[in-house]
Amino acid sequence: MERSEESLFSVHTDLALEERESFPGDGGEIAGVEVHEWERKENGIRITEVIIKDAQGAEKMRKPVGAYLTLEAPELADRDEDYHREVAEELASQICRIFERHGIMAGSASILTVGLGNPDATPDSLGPLVLERLQMTRHLNLEYGKDFCAKKKYPVLSGITPGVMAQTGMETAEIIRGVVSETDPDAVLVIDALAARSVHRLGVTIQLSDTGIYPGSGVGNHRGSMTEEEFGVPVFAIGVPTVVGAAAIVKDTVDAMIGTLKREKATAGYGDSIEAMDPDEQYELIRELLEPQFGPMYVTPHNIDERVENLSYTISEAIHAALFRETVRAGEKA
Amino acid sequence: MERSEESLFSVHTDLALEERESFPGDGGEIAGVEVHEWERKENGIRITEVIIKDAQGAEKMRKPVGAYLTLEAPELADRDEDYHREVAEELASQICRIFERHGIMAGSASILTVGLGNPDATPDSLGPLVLERLQMTRHLNLEYGKDFCAKKKYPVLSGITPGVMAQTGMETAEIIRGVVSETDPDAVLVIDALAARSVHRLGVTIQLSDTGIYPGSGVGNHRGSMTEEEFGVPVFAIGVPTVVGAAAIVKDTVDAMIGTLKREKATAGYGDSIEAMDPDEQYELIRELLEPQFGPMYVTPHNIDERVENLSYTISEAIHAALFRETVRAGEKA
Amino acid sequence: MERSEESLFSVHTDLALEERESFPGDGGEIAGVEVHEWERKENGIRITEVIIKDAQGAEKMRKPVGAYLTLEAPELADRDEDYHREVAEELASQICRIFERHGIMAGSASILTVGLGNPDATPDSLGPLVLERLQMTRHLNLEYGKDFCAKKKYPVLSGITPGVMAQTGMETAEIIRGVVSETDPDAVLVIDALAARSVHRLGVTIQLSDTGIYPGSGVGNHRGSMTEEEFGVPVFAIGVPTVVGAAAIVKDTVDAMIGTLKREKATAGYGDSIEAMDPDEQYELIRELLEPQFGPMYVTPHNIDERVENLSYTISEAIHAALFRETVRAGEKA
Amino acid sequence: MERSEESLFSVHTDLALEERESFPGDGGEIAGVEVHEWERKENGIRITEVIIKDAQGAEKMRKPVGAYLTLEAPELADRDEDYHREVAEELASQICRIFERHGIMAGSASILTVGLGNPDATPDSLGPLVLERLQMTRHLNLEYGKDFCAKKKYPVLSGITPGVMAQTGMETAEIIRGVVSETDPDAVLVIDALAARSVHRLGVTIQLSDTGIYPGSGVGNHRGSMTEEEFGVPVFAIGVPTVVGAAAIVKDTVDAMIGTLKREKATAGYGDSIEAMDPDEQYELIRELLEPQFGPMYVTPHNIDERVENLSYTISEAIHAALFRETVRAGEKA
Repeated sequence: MERSEESLFSVHTDLALEERESFPGDGGEIAGVEVHEWERKENGIRITEVIIKDAQGAEKMRKPVGAYLTLEAPELADRDEDYHREVAEELASQICRIFERHGIMAGSASILTVGLGNPDATPDSLGPLVLERLQMTRHLNLEYGKDFCAKKKYPVLSGITPGVMAQTGMETAEIIRGVVSETDPDAVLVIDALAARSVHRLGVTIQLSDTGIYPGSGVGNHRGSMTEEEFGVPVFAIGVPTVVGAAAIVKDTVDAMIGTLKREKATAGYGDSIEAMDPDEQYELIRELLEPQFGPMYVTPHNIDERVENLSYTISEAIHAALFRETVRAGEKA
Repeated sequence: MERSEESLFSVHTDLALEERESFPGDGGEIAGVEVHEWERKENGIRITEVIIKDAQGAEKMRKPVGAYLTLEAPELADRDEDYHREVAEELASQICRIFERHGIMAGSASILTVGLGNPDATPDSLGPLVLERLQMTRHLNLEYGKDFCAKKKYPVLSGITPGVMAQTGMETAEIIRGVVSETDPDAVLVIDALAARSVHRLGVTIQLSDTGIYPGSGVGNHRGSMTEEEFGVPVFAIGVPTVVGAAAIVKDTVDAMIGTLKREKATAGYGDSIEAMDPDEQYELIRELLEPQFGPMYVTPHNIDERVENLSYTISEAIHAALFRETVRAGEKA
Repeated sequence: MERSEESLFSVHTDLALEERESFPGDGGEIAGVEVHEWERKENGIRITEVIIKDAQGAEKMRKPVGAYLTLEAPELADRDEDYHREVAEELASQICRIFERHGIMAGSASILTVGLGNPDATPDSLGPLVLERLQMTRHLNLEYGKDFCAKKKYPVLSGITPGVMAQTGMETAEIIRGVVSETDPDAVLVIDALAARSVHRLGVTIQLSDTGIYPGSGVGNHRGSMTEEEFGVPVFAIGVPTVVGAAAIVKDTVDAMIGTLKREKATAGYGDSIEAMDPDEQYELIRELLEPQFGPMYVTPHNIDERVENLSYTISEAIHAALFRETVRAGEKA
Repeated sequence: MERSEESLFSVHTDLALEERESFPGDGGEIAGVEVHEWERKENGIRITEVIIKDAQGAEKMRKPVGAYLTLEAPELADRDEDYHREVAEELASQICRIFERHGIMAGSASILTVGLGNPDATPDSLGPLVLERLQMTRHLNLEYGKDFCAKKKYPVLSGITPGVMAQTGMETAEIIRGVVSETDPDAVLVIDALAARSVHRLGVTIQLSDTGIYPGSGVGNHRGSMTEEEFGVPVFAIGVPTVVGAAAIVKDTVDAMIGTLKREKATAGYGDSIEAMDPDEQYELIRELLEPQFGPMYVTPHNIDERVENLSYTISEAIHAALFRETVRAGEKA
């Protein structure tokens, strides 16, 4: 979750799901974008797959071409270990499925995992925490012979927690590109904390995508991208929103107030005033309030440390289940 | 910074300075409240002392009777070590002064320091981080004879990081009361992260008070209070705001928008609509937006880990300077 | 594991089991000491109970009167989660049993847990790590009414990680005594890293006792003791050896060499030379080698971080199983 | 400090100084090895430079050709900040000097720093702790234009904490080689915890070398080497011994006892017995005692956390002084 400061004052979301919801008439068709939704009755997990098929869809969605799968599991906010395990199983199946589409066999491929984010900033520490929990195996091939993992039916798993640019003086993409070219994995799997637009998604939504990571606004600026184009192997990402930009919160509130006023008061004029306000003016106002000399502000839940800790367990279990257990298979999915 | 959830949706501030600013006609007199302000020309540090003199002032200010000293040092946001040292010196002088008023001699007293907050949640880790940096001495008396510190001209310094209630199952006040009654210090000095109302104060304002700590709204509920009344010795507190309640941000923005609309459009009616909205309705709207099923939200700067780290250095240096160095004396202050 | 420096050069062990083994003719009777041993066939866990019955036994064993139960589970060194769970179940049963003997009902009593040791020094961080994993409940009574835990059939669990004397300036015993007198638990349960005499016991032996904690050599010096006598409630302790004093290692090697020489060479005189060496001379020699100006040395395994991490899981699971699950009952034990 | 297990039972040292001392007649000449020694009178810092000039010297010293500079500063064991600063200044001068010999200008070169070791194991966390304290600058060139550092007279500093093989599944050398080839620094500077032979050197000796890092015994096995040959740029290393192999301690004690016996008793036969013991037999005995099923053992001081913390400050200050301050110049050195 390292992005250019500019993007923070726009009402940015890392979730394809939220981007799509922002279109007027939510349920409608968007050219170049396909959407599938289903729900697991047994546990209430809701899955949405947004597929951006072409350049037209990419431009509209402000996200690159590819698949974005979202698991929504509201009860993740609670501590129930069994429920976390069910979500992990679901995520494991989806990891197998998305890997398979790119010709990666989850159980035997060599995967480089990357824990993006700042281990010292709680909401940004999800990636590093997941990496701490993963059981690496690639070094066993170095120590006990290059077929060791294959014989044991282990995947060839490696991982790195690169830190953020202020800590390393390097773009994360530079570090990962170097490690990829040295260690030659079949795929890269990035774990990262995301920014959402709605506080209701914080910590209860998991996004799985196959499009790589684009710091900043997503399209255009290629510096720092971690993509198949850059690395030569598919780049998958698992992300969970842990913060909302403060500007998004404010904008949503103002919009809601306008909506309420409009609904409640028939009188023309009421409620139009702010809406009528020049967007630039609105932006300037919010900027003054939310951008002190020391940079952008984030909104995060009060118990974020506990939630990130729990989610790191869920995600690491999912990755282990997808890669290590032979019994979990993509085919299980309808 | 452990407080009841209710208080988080009110537009609460832990800063006496901000409470006072909220009165209409900012500069005016408030019965029972005295205010002094001055500025250090050499470094631009602005000092405000709010003294709540009696019950009348306490009720108005929603804070207990006592002295609240605020240092505002906007450049604290930058990393300059020399500036941090100047702020530490200023804070050291003020610590000596406020101690002296209560008959505590900074250089020789026995002081129990308390690092409040959750070490695992970055914005709430200020207290624990300061405690990590403090050089304790009380045990030297236990090891080398009870006059050891006196002979060395050391203060008798001890400290504890109690953790938060979910981690301990105990009120912090229970733990500290027990430790005070066992170890019998002359005074307690609490270090804590605070909630402010304005993002512009985050990380650049230090409050020093002699009134103890009241979890929650401050007045009324005595459970969990850490005060002279409870402990039998003066309780001082050093606090730095590191978060703003999300509700405060939203309320400020809406207020600012109304203000702007009123100023800019002469037409009556414009801008009044939201203002006219029932406060309960406003509250309900904000609540819906900001209170997902998992509790209250906070706003915090993007680089909060760095800022809390730097501030913990500044505050620990100030405490060391106040207690250890003979050359820093309360008398130096004008 | 905070003890006076002197004790470190003696060949000290915190394990009653090892103390007893040090008597000549290992299997023999010691007046005032009772020993029971059994083994769980299903998992190879070996249990030894050393009961020091009176002052005579205490003097001989250099440990206070009480029960010392030791679980030896060599496979704890490996990472198998299932095995760790079996050990946790066994330990849970023994916790229930030892509690019961003191009239403490594991499922409903109010227990204060204490994580002794230095969280910043890996081999000494076992206690703090266990505390991080425990699920406290006592605060639920404060928040939701004083019968909340009873209704839910929860124990009333609280806990503290006091830190070590150099970090707090206080004796750990002072802090705990204060907390006990404020929060009034039925019993105290201390978790601590121990020093053993043999490297073969590091990380694979768990000692459970009902005699409290005596810093230093155990008998004589009462400063800093955490005992029923001091606190007014029973003090149980769970300890795992994570270090061996360097002096113990050296002494054992020299003894072994002498033994080997004696066995292998029939010639009188051979091998007697070192044995004949004045013990004071031996001590002086070891001291010179092992006591640089900066204090005593410890021996610890290379992967101590991983082992302490795994053990903290096992012990926290055992405590949870003993206190929370109604199905685990002392009666299950033969 | 990641090395093959075999090397741990040999009496290995990472210090060229100690390797040289192990030769009989300590002061004598070794073909292919040059030694210079001097002492700073003002602060008692003793500096020894061991230069291995050719293959003959390398074979004898079991270390590669190159320069090994050792600073011995016994008072580093104490906490005096001023003394740490003096040592940092001395180390800074030596860094500048050794850089200069390889044509690297400390103030303007682009340097990749590497914090080797395991951040979760206290004695092995020196490298990661130093990296946490370093102020990176290379990203400023990426953000503000590629001459930014040059204009500000900053070095181009970057850094990475790669973790150990069990955490990453990769050889550290693979990660660094990848990062070097992507980011193209002028030199690599590795910071690592070392193993010494004598406990008296723990934490009070700093070794600076220009030969790179060879895991394991140093010569022969090239897998995992971090050297100029491998990376194409000079590889410097700063190391501080924080552990002694348990086997080294035992061997030293036994040797000392034999020596004492020989000196003290004129009688032939006394003291010869152990010396006469077959080295293989000795090894087997030590192995049995020190190698439980779970691997090699280390000796480390009781307050290792504090010492590593203080040393990380000293070394990071030295690196900052060497690279950032124009006033510290190699020329200052006699």
